[in-house]
Amino acid sequence: MTDRTDQSARAQQWFESLRDRICAEFESIEREAGSDAAFEYAPWDREEDGNADPGGGVRGLIKGKVFEKAGVNVSTVRGNFSQEFAGSIHGASADSPGFTATGISLVAHMANPHVPAVHMNTRFLTTGKAWFGGGADLNPPIPYEEDTQEFHARFRAACAAHNPTYYERFSKWAEDYFFIPHRGVARGVGGIFYDHLECDDEAAFERNFAFTKDVGDAFLDIFPKLVRRRMESSFTEADARTQLEWRGRYAEFNLVYDRGTLFGLKTGGNIDAILMSLPPRAVWS
Amino acid sequence: MTDRTDQSARAQQWFESLRDRICAEFESIEREAGSDAAFEYAPWDREEDGNADPGGGVRGLIKGKVFEKAGVNVSTVRGNFSQEFAGSIHGASADSPGFTATGISLVAHMANPHVPAVHMNTRFLTTGKAWFGGGADLNPPIPYEEDTQEFHARFRAACAAHNPTYYERFSKWAEDYFFIPHRGVARGVGGIFYDHLECDDEAAFERNFAFTKDVGDAFLDIFPKLVRRRMESSFTEADARTQLEWRGRYAEFNLVYDRGTLFGLKTGGNIDAILMSLPPRAVWS
Repeated sequence: MTDRTDQSARAQQWFESLRDRICAEFESIEREAGSDAAFEYAPWDREEDGNADPGGGVRGLIKGKVFEKAGVNVSTVRGNFSQEFAGSIHGASADSPGFTATGISLVAHMANPHVPAVHMNTRFLTTGKAWFGGGADLNPPIPYEEDTQEFHARFRAACAAHNPTYYERFSKWAEDYFFIPHRGVARGVGGIFYDHLECDDEAAFERNFAFTKDVGDAFLDIFPKLVRRRMESSFTEADARTQLEWRGRYAEFNLVYDRGTLFGLKTGGNIDAILMSLPPRAVWS
Repeated sequence: MTDRTDQSARAQQWFESLRDRICAEFESIEREAGSDAAFEYAPWDREEDGNADPGGGVRGLIKGKVFEKAGVNVSTVRGNFSQEFAGSIHGASADSPGFTATGISLVAHMANPHVPAVHMNTRFLTTGKAWFGGGADLNPPIPYEEDTQEFHARFRAACAAHNPTYYERFSKWAEDYFFIPHRGVARGVGGIFYDHLECDDEAAFERNFAFTKDVGDAFLDIFPKLVRRRMESSFTEADARTQLEWRGRYAEFNLVYDRGTLFGLKTGGNIDAILMSLPPRAVWS
Protein backbone atom coordinates (compact mmCIF):
# COMPACT_ATOMS: atom_id res chain seq x y z
CA MET A 1 0.00 0.00 0.00
CA THR A 2 1.22 3.50 -0.80
CA ASP A 3 2.67 5.37 2.15
CA ARG A 4 0.43 8.40 2.52
CA THR A 5 2.27 9.94 5.48
CA ASP A 6 3.76 12.72 3.44
CA GLN A 7 0.52 13.48 1.62
CA SER A 8 -1.40 13.67 4.89
CA ALA A 9 1.25 15.95 6.38
CA ARG A 10 1.11 18.30 3.41
CA ALA A 11 -2.68 18.41 3.52
CA GLN A 12 -2.65 19.07 7.25
CA GLN A 13 -0.16 21.88 6.80
CA TRP A 14 -2.37 23.47 4.19
CA PHE A 15 -5.50 23.20 6.34
CA GLU A 16 -3.64 24.84 9.23
CA SER A 17 -2.31 27.67 7.09
CA LEU A 18 -5.77 28.21 5.57
CA ARG A 19 -7.20 28.36 9.09
CA ASP A 20 -4.62 30.97 10.09
CA ARG A 21 -5.43 33.17 7.09
CA ILE A 22 -9.20 32.87 7.59
CA CYS A 23 -8.98 33.65 11.28
CA ALA A 24 -6.77 36.68 10.61
CA GLU A 25 -9.29 37.93 8.05
CA PHE A 26 -12.27 37.43 10.38
CA GLU A 27 -10.41 39.30 13.12
CA SER A 28 -9.68 42.14 10.66
CA ILE A 29 -13.40 42.40 10.01
CA GLU A 30 -14.03 42.62 13.73
CA ARG A 31 -11.49 45.49 13.96
CA GLU A 32 -13.28 47.31 11.15
CA ALA A 33 -16.47 47.04 13.21
CA GLY A 34 -14.70 48.48 16.24
CA SER A 35 -14.35 45.21 18.14
CA ASP A 36 -11.21 43.56 19.45
CA ALA A 37 -12.74 40.07 19.45
CA ALA A 38 -10.20 37.33 18.67
CA PHE A 39 -10.25 33.60 18.15
CA GLU A 40 -9.57 31.48 21.18
CA TYR A 41 -7.99 28.12 20.51
CA ALA A 42 -8.60 24.93 22.44
CA PRO A 43 -6.59 21.83 21.55
CA TRP A 44 -8.26 18.47 22.09
CA ASP A 45 -6.94 14.93 22.04
CA ARG A 46 -8.71 12.02 20.49
CA GLU A 47 -8.86 8.78 22.44
CA GLU A 48 -8.99 5.27 21.08
CA ASP A 49 -8.37 2.13 23.10
CA GLY A 50 -5.01 0.63 22.26
CA ASN A 51 -4.03 3.53 19.99
CA ALA A 52 -0.97 5.37 21.27
CA ASP A 53 -1.18 8.12 18.66
CA PRO A 54 -4.84 8.73 17.83
CA GLY A 55 -4.38 12.40 16.99
CA GLY A 56 -6.67 15.27 17.83
CA GLY A 57 -7.29 18.81 16.79
CA VAL A 58 -7.61 22.44 17.65
CA ARG A 59 -10.93 24.18 17.88
CA GLY A 60 -10.90 27.94 17.32
CA LEU A 61 -13.86 30.01 18.41
CA ILE A 62 -14.62 33.70 18.10
CA LYS A 63 -17.58 35.52 19.60
CA GLY A 64 -17.52 39.03 18.28
CA LYS A 65 -19.60 41.95 17.11
CA VAL A 66 -19.91 40.79 13.49
CA PHE A 67 -19.29 37.08 14.04
CA GLU A 68 -21.80 36.21 16.74
CA LYS A 69 -20.19 32.78 16.84
CA ALA A 70 -17.71 31.36 14.36
CA GLY A 71 -15.89 28.12 14.93
CA VAL A 72 -13.08 26.58 12.95
CA ASN A 73 -11.72 23.17 13.70
CA VAL A 74 -8.60 21.59 12.24
CA SER A 75 -8.25 17.96 13.16
CA THR A 76 -5.85 15.20 12.23
CA VAL A 77 -6.75 11.76 13.48
CA ARG A 78 -5.61 8.20 12.86
CA GLY A 79 -6.92 4.86 13.97
CA ASN A 80 -8.77 1.72 13.11
CA PHE A 81 -12.43 1.22 12.40
CA SER A 82 -14.18 -1.47 14.36
CA GLN A 83 -14.76 -4.59 12.24
CA GLU A 84 -18.48 -3.98 11.94
CA PHE A 85 -17.99 -0.31 11.07
CA ALA A 86 -15.23 -0.85 8.51
CA GLY A 87 -17.61 -2.46 6.02
CA SER A 88 -19.62 0.73 5.69
CA ILE A 89 -16.61 2.99 5.11
CA HIS A 90 -15.27 3.84 1.66
CA GLY A 91 -12.08 1.88 1.01
CA ALA A 92 -12.01 0.24 4.44
CA SER A 93 -12.48 -3.44 5.17
CA ALA A 94 -11.93 -5.95 7.93
CA ASP A 95 -8.47 -6.62 6.40
CA SER A 96 -7.67 -2.94 6.14
CA PRO A 97 -9.39 -1.11 8.95
CA GLY A 98 -6.83 1.68 9.39
CA PHE A 99 -7.63 5.25 8.53
CA THR A 100 -6.27 8.77 8.74
CA ALA A 101 -8.29 11.95 8.35
CA THR A 102 -7.13 15.52 8.31
CA GLY A 103 -9.38 18.45 7.59
CA ILE A 104 -10.66 21.91 8.31
CA SER A 105 -14.25 22.63 9.18
CA LEU A 106 -15.74 26.07 9.64
CA VAL A 107 -19.16 27.45 10.51
CA ALA A 108 -19.94 31.13 11.03
CA HIS A 109 -23.19 32.41 12.54
CA MET A 110 -23.42 36.15 12.07
CA ALA A 111 -24.84 38.79 14.40
CA ASN A 112 -26.62 40.73 11.65
CA PRO A 113 -29.49 38.77 10.04
CA HIS A 114 -28.71 40.37 6.66
CA VAL A 115 -25.25 38.79 6.66
CA PRO A 116 -25.30 35.17 5.50
CA ALA A 117 -24.11 32.38 7.75
CA VAL A 118 -21.67 30.03 6.06
CA HIS A 119 -20.17 26.59 6.25
CA MET A 120 -16.91 25.41 4.69
CA ASN A 121 -15.12 22.11 5.08
CA THR A 122 -12.31 20.34 3.23
CA ARG A 123 -10.58 17.12 4.17
CA PHE A 124 -8.15 14.40 3.09
CA LEU A 125 -8.88 10.83 4.09
CA THR A 126 -6.96 7.63 3.72
CA THR A 127 -8.19 4.08 4.25
CA GLY A 128 -7.30 1.39 1.71
CA LYS A 129 -8.02 4.33 -0.61
CA ALA A 130 -7.21 8.03 -0.33
CA TRP A 131 -9.40 10.96 -1.33
CA PHE A 132 -10.29 14.59 -0.86
CA GLY A 133 -13.74 15.92 -0.09
CA GLY A 134 -15.27 19.15 1.00
CA GLY A 135 -17.41 22.06 0.02
CA ALA A 136 -18.96 25.30 1.15
CA ASP A 137 -22.51 26.54 1.30
CA LEU A 138 -24.11 29.87 2.02
CA ASN A 139 -26.89 30.11 4.59
CA PRO A 140 -28.55 33.50 4.60
CA PRO A 141 -31.46 33.94 7.01
CA ILE A 142 -32.53 36.73 4.63
CA PRO A 143 -31.25 35.85 1.15
CA TYR A 144 -30.02 38.38 -1.40
CA GLU A 145 -29.84 37.24 -5.02
CA GLU A 146 -26.67 39.29 -5.53
CA ASP A 147 -24.85 37.47 -2.69
CA THR A 148 -26.03 34.06 -3.87
CA GLN A 149 -24.87 34.70 -7.42
CA GLU A 150 -21.44 35.99 -6.41
CA PHE A 151 -20.87 33.12 -4.01
CA HIS A 152 -21.73 30.58 -6.70
CA ALA A 153 -19.75 32.45 -9.37
CA ARG A 154 -16.62 32.34 -7.23
CA PHE A 155 -16.85 28.58 -6.73
CA ARG A 156 -17.81 28.08 -10.36
CA ALA A 157 -14.53 29.78 -11.27
CA ALA A 158 -12.56 27.65 -8.80
CA CYS A 159 -14.12 24.52 -10.31
CA ALA A 160 -13.68 25.61 -13.91
CA ALA A 161 -9.93 25.91 -13.48
CA HIS A 162 -9.78 22.19 -12.75
CA ASN A 163 -12.51 20.31 -14.53
CA PRO A 164 -15.33 21.50 -16.76
CA THR A 165 -17.82 19.16 -15.08
CA TYR A 166 -17.03 20.01 -11.47
CA TYR A 167 -19.26 23.00 -10.87
CA GLU A 168 -22.36 21.44 -12.34
CA ARG A 169 -21.83 18.18 -10.46
CA PHE A 170 -20.72 19.66 -7.17
CA SER A 171 -23.33 22.43 -6.99
CA LYS A 172 -26.03 19.84 -7.71
CA TRP A 173 -24.54 17.67 -4.98
CA ALA A 174 -24.74 20.59 -2.53
CA GLU A 175 -28.35 21.21 -3.56
CA ASP A 176 -29.23 17.57 -2.88
CA TYR A 177 -27.25 17.37 0.34
CA PHE A 178 -28.16 20.63 2.07
CA PHE A 179 -31.86 19.91 2.00
CA ILE A 180 -34.25 19.45 4.92
CA PRO A 181 -36.61 16.68 3.75
CA HIS A 182 -39.08 16.93 6.61
CA ARG A 183 -39.68 20.60 5.80
CA GLY A 184 -39.21 20.27 2.05
CA VAL A 185 -36.88 23.25 1.99
CA ALA A 186 -33.19 23.85 1.28
CA ARG A 187 -30.97 24.65 4.27
CA GLY A 188 -29.55 27.63 2.46
CA VAL A 189 -28.80 28.81 -1.08
CA GLY A 190 -26.26 26.12 -1.87
CA GLY A 191 -22.66 26.17 -2.96
CA ILE A 192 -20.59 23.11 -3.74
CA PHE A 193 -20.17 19.72 -2.12
CA TYR A 194 -17.71 17.06 -3.29
CA ASP A 195 -16.37 13.79 -2.02
CA HIS A 196 -14.26 10.83 -3.09
CA LEU A 197 -11.89 12.74 -5.33
CA GLU A 198 -9.73 9.65 -5.51
CA CYS A 199 -5.96 9.89 -5.26
CA ASP A 200 -4.92 6.60 -6.82
CA ASP A 201 -1.51 7.90 -7.88
CA GLU A 202 0.76 10.88 -7.17
CA ALA A 203 -0.62 12.86 -10.09
CA ALA A 204 -4.19 12.41 -8.90
CA PHE A 205 -3.20 13.47 -5.40
CA GLU A 206 -1.57 16.65 -6.73
CA ARG A 207 -4.57 17.47 -8.92
CA ASN A 208 -7.11 16.98 -6.16
CA PHE A 209 -4.97 18.75 -3.60
CA ALA A 210 -4.65 21.75 -5.92
CA PHE A 211 -8.41 21.81 -6.38
CA THR A 212 -9.03 21.58 -2.64
CA LYS A 213 -6.63 24.46 -2.06
CA ASP A 214 -8.51 26.54 -4.62
CA VAL A 215 -11.78 25.79 -2.85
CA GLY A 216 -10.30 27.14 0.38
CA ASP A 217 -8.92 30.21 -1.38
CA ALA A 218 -12.25 30.83 -3.11
CA PHE A 219 -13.97 30.78 0.27
CA LEU A 220 -11.47 33.22 1.74
CA ASP A 221 -11.88 35.47 -1.28
CA ILE A 222 -15.67 35.66 -1.47
CA PHE A 223 -17.11 35.26 2.03
CA PRO A 224 -15.44 38.31 3.65
CA LYS A 225 -16.74 40.43 0.73
CA LEU A 226 -20.31 39.39 1.50
CA VAL A 227 -19.79 40.05 5.20
CA ARG A 228 -18.41 43.54 4.64
CA ARG A 229 -21.26 44.34 2.25
CA ARG A 230 -23.99 43.89 4.87
CA MET A 231 -22.45 43.91 8.34
CA GLU A 232 -23.54 47.51 8.97
CA SER A 233 -27.10 47.04 7.60
CA SER A 234 -29.82 48.06 10.00
CA PHE A 235 -32.31 45.38 10.93
CA THR A 236 -35.69 45.11 12.62
CA GLU A 237 -36.99 42.93 15.43
CA ALA A 238 -38.78 40.92 12.75
CA ASP A 239 -35.47 40.37 10.89
CA ALA A 240 -33.88 39.17 14.14
CA ARG A 241 -36.79 36.78 14.73
CA THR A 242 -36.49 35.49 11.16
CA GLN A 243 -32.83 34.77 11.82
CA LEU A 244 -33.56 32.86 15.04
CA GLU A 245 -36.28 30.75 13.43
CA TRP A 246 -34.04 30.08 10.48
CA ARG A 247 -31.35 28.93 12.91
CA GLY A 248 -33.82 26.43 14.35
CA ARG A 249 -34.00 24.87 10.87
CA TYR A 250 -30.21 24.91 10.66
CA ALA A 251 -29.93 23.04 13.98
CA GLU A 252 -32.53 20.52 12.77
CA PHE A 253 -30.53 19.82 9.63
CA ASN A 254 -27.26 19.37 11.48
CA LEU A 255 -28.68 17.15 14.22
CA VAL A 256 -31.03 15.01 12.11
CA TYR A 257 -29.23 14.68 8.79
CA ASP A 258 -25.67 15.96 8.68
CA ARG A 259 -23.42 12.95 8.10
CA GLY A 260 -20.36 14.52 9.68
CA THR A 261 -22.26 15.49 12.81
CA LEU A 262 -23.90 12.11 13.28
CA PHE A 263 -20.69 10.26 12.44
CA GLY A 264 -18.88 12.34 15.05
CA LEU A 265 -21.54 11.99 17.74
CA LYS A 266 -21.88 8.25 17.28
CA THR A 267 -18.17 7.49 17.15
CA GLY A 268 -17.15 9.37 20.26
CA GLY A 269 -15.68 12.42 18.56
CA ASN A 270 -14.94 15.66 20.37
CA ILE A 271 -18.38 17.04 21.26
CA ASP A 272 -17.37 20.68 21.38
CA ALA A 273 -15.70 20.47 17.99
CA ILE A 274 -18.60 18.56 16.42
CA LEU A 275 -21.34 20.77 17.80
CA MET A 276 -19.42 23.96 17.09
CA SER A 277 -21.68 24.15 14.05
CA LEU A 278 -24.81 24.74 16.11
CA PRO A 279 -26.12 28.28 16.25
CA PRO A 280 -25.43 30.33 19.38
CA ARG A 281 -29.17 30.97 19.80
CA ALA A 282 -32.24 29.52 18.09
CA VAL A 283 -35.99 29.54 18.51
CA TRP A 284 -38.83 27.21 17.61
CA SER A 285 -42.33 28.58 17.42
CA MET B 1 -57.77 -11.17 13.51
CA THR B 2 -59.49 -9.47 16.44
CA ASP B 3 -61.42 -6.35 15.51
CA ARG B 4 -59.76 -3.60 17.51
CA THR B 5 -62.02 -0.78 16.32
CA ASP B 6 -63.81 -0.48 19.62
CA GLN B 7 -60.61 -0.68 21.67
CA SER B 8 -58.97 2.04 19.57
CA ALA B 9 -62.06 4.23 19.92
CA ARG B 10 -62.10 3.85 23.69
CA ALA B 11 -58.40 4.62 23.94
CA GLN B 12 -58.77 7.67 21.70
CA GLN B 13 -61.68 8.92 23.81
CA TRP B 14 -59.57 8.57 26.94
CA PHE B 15 -56.61 10.41 25.41
CA GLU B 16 -58.90 13.25 24.37
CA SER B 17 -60.52 13.53 27.78
CA LEU B 18 -57.12 13.44 29.48
CA ARG B 19 -55.96 16.21 27.15
CA ASP B 20 -59.01 18.31 28.08
CA ARG B 21 -58.35 17.90 31.81
CA ILE B 22 -54.63 18.65 31.49
CA CYS B 23 -55.24 21.74 29.38
CA ALA B 24 -57.87 23.03 31.82
CA GLU B 25 -55.41 22.54 34.67
CA PHE B 26 -52.56 24.29 32.86
CA GLU B 27 -54.89 27.19 32.08
CA SER B 28 -55.91 27.36 35.77
CA ILE B 29 -52.25 27.70 36.67
CA GLU B 30 -51.92 30.55 34.19
CA ARG B 31 -54.92 32.29 35.86
CA GLU B 32 -53.27 31.92 39.26
CA ALA B 33 -50.22 33.69 37.82
CA GLY B 34 -52.41 36.50 36.52
CA SER B 35 -52.34 35.49 32.87
CA ASP B 36 -55.25 34.70 30.58
CA ALA B 37 -53.19 32.52 28.25
CA ALA B 38 -55.16 29.66 26.75
CA PHE B 39 -54.47 26.68 24.52
CA GLU B 40 -55.03 27.19 20.84
CA TYR B 41 -55.97 24.12 18.87
CA ALA B 42 -54.96 23.34 15.30
CA PRO B 43 -56.37 20.20 13.67
CA TRP B 44 -54.23 18.52 11.05
CA ASP B 45 -54.96 15.77 8.53
CA ARG B 46 -52.63 12.95 7.74
CA GLU B 47 -52.08 12.07 4.10
CA GLU B 48 -51.27 8.68 2.62
CA ASP B 49 -51.51 7.79 -1.03
CA GLY B 50 -54.52 5.58 -1.70
CA ASN B 51 -55.78 5.88 1.87
CA ALA B 52 -59.21 7.55 2.03
CA ASP B 53 -59.24 7.70 5.83
CA PRO B 54 -55.66 8.16 7.11
CA GLY B 55 -56.71 10.07 10.22
CA GLY B 56 -54.97 13.04 11.78
CA GLY B 57 -54.84 14.90 15.01
CA VAL B 58 -55.21 18.09 16.94
CA ARG B 59 -52.22 20.03 18.21
CA GLY B 60 -52.85 22.25 21.22
CA LEU B 61 -50.36 24.97 22.06
CA ILE B 62 -50.17 27.45 24.91
CA LYS B 63 -47.66 30.26 25.30
CA GLY B 64 -48.21 31.79 28.67
CA LYS B 65 -46.57 33.35 31.68
CA VAL B 66 -45.81 30.08 33.47
CA PHE B 67 -45.85 27.76 30.47
CA GLU B 68 -43.43 29.45 28.10
CA LYS B 69 -44.46 26.85 25.52
CA ALA B 70 -46.49 23.72 26.16
CA GLY B 71 -47.80 21.54 23.38
CA VAL B 72 -50.17 18.62 23.55
CA ASN B 73 -50.99 16.54 20.53
CA VAL B 74 -53.70 13.89 20.29
CA SER B 75 -53.53 11.94 17.08
CA THR B 76 -55.37 8.96 15.67
CA VAL B 77 -54.00 7.57 12.44
CA ARG B 78 -54.49 4.45 10.34
CA GLY B 79 -52.76 3.09 7.30
CA ASN B 80 -50.36 0.61 5.84
CA PHE B 81 -46.62 0.36 6.23
CA SER B 82 -44.61 0.09 3.06
CA GLN B 83 -43.37 -3.46 2.47
CA GLU B 84 -39.79 -2.63 3.32
CA PHE B 85 -40.79 -0.73 6.47
CA ALA B 86 -43.26 -3.33 7.75
CA GLY B 87 -40.48 -5.78 8.59
CA SER B 88 -39.01 -3.43 11.16
CA ILE B 89 -42.30 -2.75 12.97
CA HIS B 90 -43.49 -4.79 15.94
CA GLY B 91 -46.25 -7.16 14.84
CA ALA B 92 -46.30 -5.93 11.25
CA SER B 93 -45.29 -7.89 8.17
CA ALA B 94 -45.63 -7.82 4.42
CA ASP B 95 -48.80 -9.95 4.83
CA SER B 96 -50.19 -7.69 7.52
CA PRO B 97 -48.97 -4.15 6.91
CA GLY B 98 -52.01 -2.34 8.38
CA PHE B 99 -51.74 -0.29 11.53
CA THR B 100 -53.66 2.10 13.74
CA ALA B 101 -52.16 4.38 16.35
CA THR B 102 -53.88 6.68 18.78
CA GLY B 103 -52.10 8.60 21.48
CA ILE B 104 -51.46 11.72 23.45
CA SER B 105 -48.10 13.43 23.57
CA LEU B 106 -47.25 16.42 25.72
CA VAL B 107 -44.15 18.54 26.28
CA ALA B 108 -44.02 21.61 28.52
CA HIS B 109 -41.15 24.09 28.55
CA MET B 110 -41.51 26.43 31.51
CA ALA B 111 -40.70 30.12 31.76
CA ASN B 112 -39.06 29.87 35.19
CA PRO B 113 -35.82 27.85 35.16
CA HIS B 114 -36.61 26.49 38.64
CA VAL B 115 -39.75 24.80 37.32
CA PRO B 116 -39.04 21.47 35.63
CA ALA B 117 -39.91 20.90 31.99
CA VAL B 118 -41.80 17.67 31.42
CA HIS B 119 -42.72 15.14 28.78
CA MET B 120 -45.64 12.69 28.87
CA ASN B 121 -46.88 10.36 26.18
CA THR B 122 -49.21 7.36 26.10
CA ARG B 123 -50.45 5.49 23.08
CA PHE B 124 -52.32 2.42 21.80
CA LEU B 125 -51.10 0.74 18.65
CA THR B 126 -52.44 -2.08 16.56
CA THR B 127 -50.67 -4.00 13.81
CA GLY B 128 -50.93 -7.78 13.70
CA LYS B 129 -50.56 -7.22 17.45
CA ALA B 130 -51.97 -4.57 19.77
CA TRP B 131 -50.22 -2.85 22.65
CA PHE B 132 -49.98 0.16 24.91
CA GLY B 133 -46.87 2.20 25.49
CA GLY B 134 -45.97 5.48 27.07
CA GLY B 135 -44.26 7.20 29.92
CA ALA B 136 -43.36 10.49 31.47
CA ASP B 137 -40.07 12.05 32.45
CA LEU B 138 -39.09 15.15 34.36
CA ASN B 139 -36.58 17.57 32.87
CA PRO B 140 -35.50 20.23 35.33
CA PRO B 141 -32.87 22.70 34.10
CA ILE B 142 -32.12 23.17 37.82
CA PRO B 143 -32.99 19.91 39.61
CA TYR B 144 -34.44 19.70 43.12
CA GLU B 145 -34.19 16.36 44.88
CA GLU B 146 -37.60 16.92 46.47
CA ASP B 147 -39.29 17.31 43.05
CA THR B 148 -37.48 14.31 41.61
CA GLN B 149 -38.49 12.09 44.51
CA GLU B 150 -42.15 13.14 44.46
CA PHE B 151 -42.39 12.69 40.70
CA HIS B 152 -40.94 9.19 40.93
CA ALA B 153 -43.01 8.33 44.02
CA ARG B 154 -46.23 9.20 42.21
CA PHE B 155 -45.41 6.96 39.24
CA ARG B 156 -44.13 4.26 41.55
CA ALA B 157 -47.58 4.27 43.18
CA ALA B 158 -49.34 4.16 39.79
CA CYS B 159 -47.16 1.19 38.79
CA ALA B 160 -47.54 -0.65 42.11
CA ALA B 161 -51.31 -0.75 41.76
CA HIS B 162 -50.90 -2.87 38.63
CA ASN B 163 -47.77 -4.98 38.78
CA PRO B 164 -45.03 -5.25 41.39
CA THR B 165 -42.32 -5.29 38.72
CA TYR B 166 -43.48 -2.29 36.68
CA TYR B 167 -41.83 0.58 38.48
CA GLU B 168 -38.43 -1.03 38.65
CA ARG B 169 -38.53 -2.09 35.02
CA PHE B 170 -40.10 1.06 33.62
CA SER B 171 -38.01 3.56 35.58
CA LYS B 172 -34.88 1.69 34.47
CA TRP B 173 -36.17 1.82 30.90
CA ALA B 174 -36.62 5.61 31.20
CA GLU B 175 -33.11 5.91 32.60
CA ASP B 176 -31.71 3.99 29.64
CA TYR B 177 -33.84 5.76 27.07
CA PHE B 178 -33.61 9.39 28.15
CA PHE B 179 -29.84 9.45 27.94
CA ILE B 180 -27.63 11.56 25.68
CA PRO B 181 -24.77 9.21 24.74
CA HIS B 182 -22.57 11.79 23.04
CA ARG B 183 -22.54 13.87 26.23
CA GLY B 184 -22.67 10.95 28.62
CA VAL B 185 -25.46 12.61 30.61
CA ALA B 186 -29.13 11.93 31.28
CA ARG B 187 -31.65 14.19 29.54
CA GLY B 188 -33.42 14.79 32.85
CA VAL B 189 -34.09 13.03 36.14
CA GLY B 190 -36.10 10.18 34.67
CA GLY B 191 -39.57 8.86 35.26
CA ILE B 192 -41.04 5.82 33.54
CA PHE B 193 -41.01 4.51 30.00
CA TYR B 194 -42.89 1.43 28.83
CA ASP B 195 -43.77 -0.20 25.55
CA HIS B 196 -45.29 -3.35 24.12
CA LEU B 197 -47.77 -3.98 26.91
CA GLU B 198 -49.39 -6.62 24.74
CA CYS B 199 -53.17 -6.90 24.51
CA ASP B 200 -53.53 -10.46 23.26
CA ASP B 201 -57.03 -10.85 24.71
CA GLU B 202 -59.79 -8.63 26.11
CA ALA B 203 -58.57 -9.05 29.67
CA ALA B 204 -55.07 -7.96 28.74
CA PHE B 205 -56.44 -4.95 26.92
CA GLU B 206 -58.49 -3.92 29.96
CA ARG B 207 -55.53 -4.38 32.30
CA ASN B 208 -53.14 -2.39 30.15
CA PHE B 209 -55.69 0.29 29.39
CA ALA B 210 -56.35 0.73 33.13
CA PHE B 211 -52.62 1.07 33.75
CA THR B 212 -52.23 3.60 30.94
CA LYS B 213 -55.11 5.63 32.37
CA ASP B 214 -53.43 5.61 35.78
CA VAL B 215 -50.20 6.86 34.20
CA GLY B 216 -52.13 9.80 32.74
CA ASP B 217 -53.84 10.50 36.03
CA ALA B 218 -50.56 10.30 37.92
CA PHE B 219 -49.09 12.89 35.58
CA LEU B 220 -52.06 15.21 36.05
CA ASP B 221 -51.81 14.75 39.81
CA ILE B 222 -48.10 15.38 40.31
CA PHE B 223 -46.87 17.77 37.63
CA PRO B 224 -49.12 20.75 38.49
CA LYS B 225 -47.99 20.42 42.14
CA LEU B 226 -44.36 20.82 41.11
CA VAL B 227 -45.22 23.77 38.88
CA ARG B 228 -47.13 25.59 41.62
CA ARG B 229 -44.29 24.97 44.07
CA ARG B 230 -41.72 26.92 42.06
CA MET B 231 -43.47 29.09 39.50
CA GLU B 232 -43.04 32.22 41.63
CA SER B 233 -39.37 31.54 42.52
CA SER B 234 -37.03 34.38 41.70
CA PHE B 235 -34.20 33.54 39.32
CA THR B 236 -30.97 35.11 38.14
CA GLU B 237 -29.51 35.76 34.70
CA ALA B 238 -27.23 32.80 35.35
CA ASP B 239 -30.26 30.56 36.07
CA ALA B 240 -31.87 31.72 32.82
CA ARG B 241 -28.65 30.95 30.93
CA THR B 242 -28.48 27.49 32.56
CA GLN B 243 -32.00 26.84 31.34
CA LEU B 244 -31.21 27.88 27.76
CA GLU B 245 -28.07 25.73 27.63
CA TRP B 246 -29.97 22.83 29.12
CA ARG B 247 -32.58 23.28 26.40
CA GLY B 248 -29.85 22.95 23.78
CA ARG B 249 -29.15 19.47 25.21
CA TYR B 250 -32.88 18.71 25.13
CA ALA B 251 -33.09 19.67 21.45
CA GLU B 252 -30.04 17.50 20.71
CA PHE B 253 -31.66 14.49 22.35
CA ASN B 254 -34.94 14.92 20.49
CA LEU B 255 -33.37 15.51 17.08
CA VAL B 256 -30.57 12.95 17.26
CA TYR B 257 -32.07 10.09 19.27
CA ASP B 258 -35.78 10.33 20.02
CA ARG B 259 -37.45 7.45 18.19
CA GLY B 260 -40.84 9.14 17.94
CA THR B 261 -39.35 12.31 16.51
CA LEU B 262 -37.19 10.55 13.93
CA PHE B 263 -39.99 8.14 13.01
CA GLY B 264 -42.30 11.11 12.48
CA LEU B 265 -39.81 13.17 10.49
CA LYS B 266 -38.80 10.32 8.24
CA THR B 267 -42.33 9.06 7.55
CA GLY B 268 -43.86 12.38 6.57
CA GLY B 269 -45.69 13.07 9.82
CA ASN B 270 -47.07 16.48 10.73
CA ILE B 271 -43.96 18.61 11.29
CA ASP B 272 -45.58 21.08 13.67
CA ALA B 273 -46.94 18.30 15.84
CA ILE B 274 -43.66 16.35 15.83
CA LEU B 275 -41.42 19.31 16.55
CA MET B 276 -43.80 20.73 19.14
CA SER B 277 -41.39 19.12 21.62
CA LEU B 278 -38.54 21.49 20.76
CA PRO B 279 -37.85 24.29 23.22
CA PRO B 280 -39.08 27.79 22.35
CA ARG B 281 -35.54 29.13 22.76
CA ALA B 282 -32.17 27.45 23.17
CA VAL B 283 -28.51 28.38 23.13
CA TRP B 284 -25.27 26.58 22.34
CA SER B 285 -22.03 28.00 23.66
